[in-house]
Amino acid sequence: MVRLLFALTLLFLAVLTAFRPTTHRKDARPNIVLIVADDHGREAVGCYGNSVIKTPHIDRLAAEGTRFTNAFCTTASCSPSRSVLLTGLHNHANGMYGLEHREHHFSSFDTVRTLPVQLEKAGYRTARIGKFHVAPERTYHFQQVLKGGGVNDPVSIGRSPVSMADLCYSLFSESSEKPFFLYFATDDPHRSNAVSAGGSPVFKSDQANRFGNRPGGYPQVHDVFYQPFQVQVPPYLPDTRAARMELAQYYESISRLDQGVERLVALLKETGQYDNTLIVYLSDNGAPFPGSKTTLYEPGMKLPLIVKLPKPQKPGFVQDAMVSWVDLTPTLLDFAGALSDTHSQGRSFKAIVEQEKVTGWDEVYASHSLHEVTMYYPMRVLRERRYKLIFNLAHALPFPMALDLYHSFTWQDVRKTGRTQYGKRTVTAYLNRPRFELYDLQTDPDEVRNLANDPNHRATLKRMQEKLKQFQQQTKDLWVSKWEFE
Amino acid sequence: MVRLLFALTLLFLAVLTAFRPTTHRKDARPNIVLIVADDHGREAVGCYGNSVIKTPHIDRLAAEGTRFTNAFCTTASCSPSRSVLLTGLHNHANGMYGLEHREHHFSSFDTVRTLPVQLEKAGYRTARIGKFHVAPERTYHFQQVLKGGGVNDPVSIGRSPVSMADLCYSLFSESSEKPFFLYFATDDPHRSNAVSAGGSPVFKSDQANRFGNRPGGYPQVHDVFYQPFQVQVPPYLPDTRAARMELAQYYESISRLDQGVERLVALLKETGQYDNTLIVYLSDNGAPFPGSKTTLYEPGMKLPLIVKLPKPQKPGFVQDAMVSWVDLTPTLLDFAGALSDTHSQGRSFKAIVEQEKVTGWDEVYASHSLHEVTMYYPMRVLRERRYKLIFNLAHALPFPMALDLYHSFTWQDVRKTGRTQYGKRTVTAYLNRPRFELYDLQTDPDEVRNLANDPNHRATLKRMQEKLKQFQQQTKDLWVSKWEFE
Repeated sequence: MVRLLFALTLLFLAVLTAFRPTTHRKDARPNIVLIVADDHGREAVGCYGNSVIKTPHIDRLAAEGTRFTNAFCTTASCSPSRSVLLTGLHNHANGMYGLEHREHHFSSFDTVRTLPVQLEKAGYRTARIGKFHVAPERTYHFQQVLKGGGVNDPVSIGRSPVSMADLCYSLFSESSEKPFFLYFATDDPHRSNAVSAGGSPVFKSDQANRFGNRPGGYPQVHDVFYQPFQVQVPPYLPDTRAARMELAQYYESISRLDQGVERLVALLKETGQYDNTLIVYLSDNGAPFPGSKTTLYEPGMKLPLIVKLPKPQKPGFVQDAMVSWVDLTPTLLDFAGALSDTHSQGRSFKAIVEQEKVTGWDEVYASHSLHEVTMYYPMRVLRERRYKLIFNLAHALPFPMALDLYHSFTWQDVRKTGRTQYGKRTVTAYLNRPRFELYDLQTDPDEVRNLANDPNHRATLKRMQEKLKQFQQQTKDLWVSKWEFE
Repeated sequence: MVRLLFALTLLFLAVLTAFRPTTHRKDARPNIVLIVADDHGREAVGCYGNSVIKTPHIDRLAAEGTRFTNAFCTTASCSPSRSVLLTGLHNHANGMYGLEHREHHFSSFDTVRTLPVQLEKAGYRTARIGKFHVAPERTYHFQQVLKGGGVNDPVSIGRSPVSMADLCYSLFSESSEKPFFLYFATDDPHRSNAVSAGGSPVFKSDQANRFGNRPGGYPQVHDVFYQPFQVQVPPYLPDTRAARMELAQYYESISRLDQGVERLVALLKETGQYDNTLIVYLSDNGAPFPGSKTTLYEPGMKLPLIVKLPKPQKPGFVQDAMVSWVDLTPTLLDFAGALSDTHSQGRSFKAIVEQEKVTGWDEVYASHSLHEVTMYYPMRVLRERRYKLIFNLAHALPFPMALDLYHSFTWQDVRKTGRTQYGKRTVTAYLNRPRFELYDLQTDPDEVRNLANDPNHRATLKRMQEKLKQFQQQTKDLWVSKWEFE
């Protein structure tokens, strides 16, 4: 019955659209739709080489737009990464050093100038839907917060990205001279955590997490199931039954997310906005497994980024320039014609979205501080094309595990079975890290042979250390003091 | 000229007072004045045994009221300690895990119920003056913020506690049915840090800090000077010229603070409020030297606490019950007749202020998380009468130094001269701590002989570890996870 109602609604919308005159805004600036997936590692996207997972609509966006092959978050933690996306400042410079919710309680400085506020000032209608996870609200203010149901509405959209997309229809169809900016942030494919009566998370470590999947699914979503034997186990994970079971659930969550993208694109087309809308698809950080999320190893920070220009000239273009999430705010402001001054620590990549053989985009910096407030483990990273330097400032501590990752079936299974190996690393190496890690990604893409103490790489180490320190000084990183003190 | 004006003002106030009828409020509840000194270690107070320093007015308060000899802060860091004072919750439970100002940017949860808000609700007029250093303002809201000068007023009171006291006159003399709560928080005797044009602190490591002292002094303050050879060097400090020079400056700052207490008491008497006012004198944490502040060794956490009841029955009483700053909010609410339910993690010591031979006050717990945001070093402490257990959760890290302490003349002098000893400890021991420290304070008051690995104290260690863990569970300490994970 619900599905029928939805179908009828859609039909009605389609009919409406057919009779709607094409929008001719005076303001020629594009609408902007920023889709932020939650923990979507790039090893689990069809167009990034995974031949099992079904993400046809994300792939189609890439086929129509530009797919970036060297795109990086700067911190592999939800709130901090989103704060970087929405400010163009590293987390150490915007104050969002860790998670925003519950006891972790981090927030950005009041004075930070954010993307939504700057776009609103530039004349955009701004709206957000889904996961927010940054603070304070007035600093990250959006004019509209699109929500399913009301306080008294028994219908919840749960984790359906398709229903989320439907809720954006009013924004797309509103008659306005102003372009819009939509921040569309799904809960998928994050792990789902049961919550106790007291509000504390409850973990079931002896079974696969459901990643938001539920029996009976969600309205308008057709469940795509995967079998554990099918999934592709990435090199950073152990090839165990537990990991495979969790990956199968993870894939299912991603295929649901993909249908949200499908609906979003469909509605943009129906409302005549598609050809005047810049669409960006990316993830806040890597997959929610030990070895990826909360680390700045490649699986944690090297992420999907798809940019669909309003009118692409080179559909299916593949861009290998190195960009990071600190570049996103200046880029979107650039598209909005509102790129002003030096508030950002990144730079606009607007000009190179379809440009071949770009020069000057050959390195990115990353900066991770905390995740949960108990998880102090600042890391600073310089990632060049070939070499990568990781500075573990609190290396004397064991690498802290996020509660949901620690309690994951994948990790607990490794503990219980007494395995000493976890993916390409030993468990010991994963938990105990040296002050500096230097990797040659050309010969060692899995980052397991640390060259920091290799005499042959002394010059490279020194050169990169100098650059990293300079980066910290230039971006007002308080933790730069650790070069001297510790 | 300025001094003459002040003198005339005072004369005028005195005359006014002489003709004022004694206040007869219907509301018989006492006014409350909470004086919070900034970094006033108890080794630098006359009535706590220092025969050199001149603190006659603090001593007099003790002579008229009750002096506590076992009073402790729960975290030796400014903002967190004040958050504990003003909420009755440990910092780990109220969200103020570290400093509030600048990039450190910690704040309490919006939902926390604070002392000023509860007293206002109970019908008190609430006012604060001086150092605030907690956030958010609406959570720690006071009705009045008493301030010297205005935006366009060229006269600044600087760090004069006497001028601060004068600014409270309007509160004391206001005709009202309601009692008042004054939060009087001096900047003395904190170190004074020069600040660059960009707002960053500037340190002069090769000379004694001035602790707010300045040539020419402050209006109405008579400078009390000390010579380096005079000062009493506490056991935790090296007996060096540098330390003595800094201690002399520190003493001078404290004697200035003492005059603020003098003026405050004088104005309470002049306005007829003294005999209906509860006065509490304490410090947020120990002295601003390595070895005290930011540590939970005795000099950092064992502090002055003087309580002057409105009508003391036992002037000069000495109370040896063990109390902590988490008890302060419930105690003051109790005096206000507003002690309600279970919001606090401490308990009221109202009933025992003048009680001899109390029972059931024989232990305190302490909890320190961070100071600066780069200074992650959580410690949990159980302090009994004889034994003290310190749990250094991040013991693998070197003990982090606050910037102002690191750059202090005292510390830098030790570094430059290559001393290996710092007070009763070695520099190495001070900077590198074990996971557990267990001290027998009866035989080892300076906490230098760690008994945590002593087979004879295994039972004591185990017993105290259990209690400490239970404390963490009961007070909803997120860091309780570290017993299991690390």
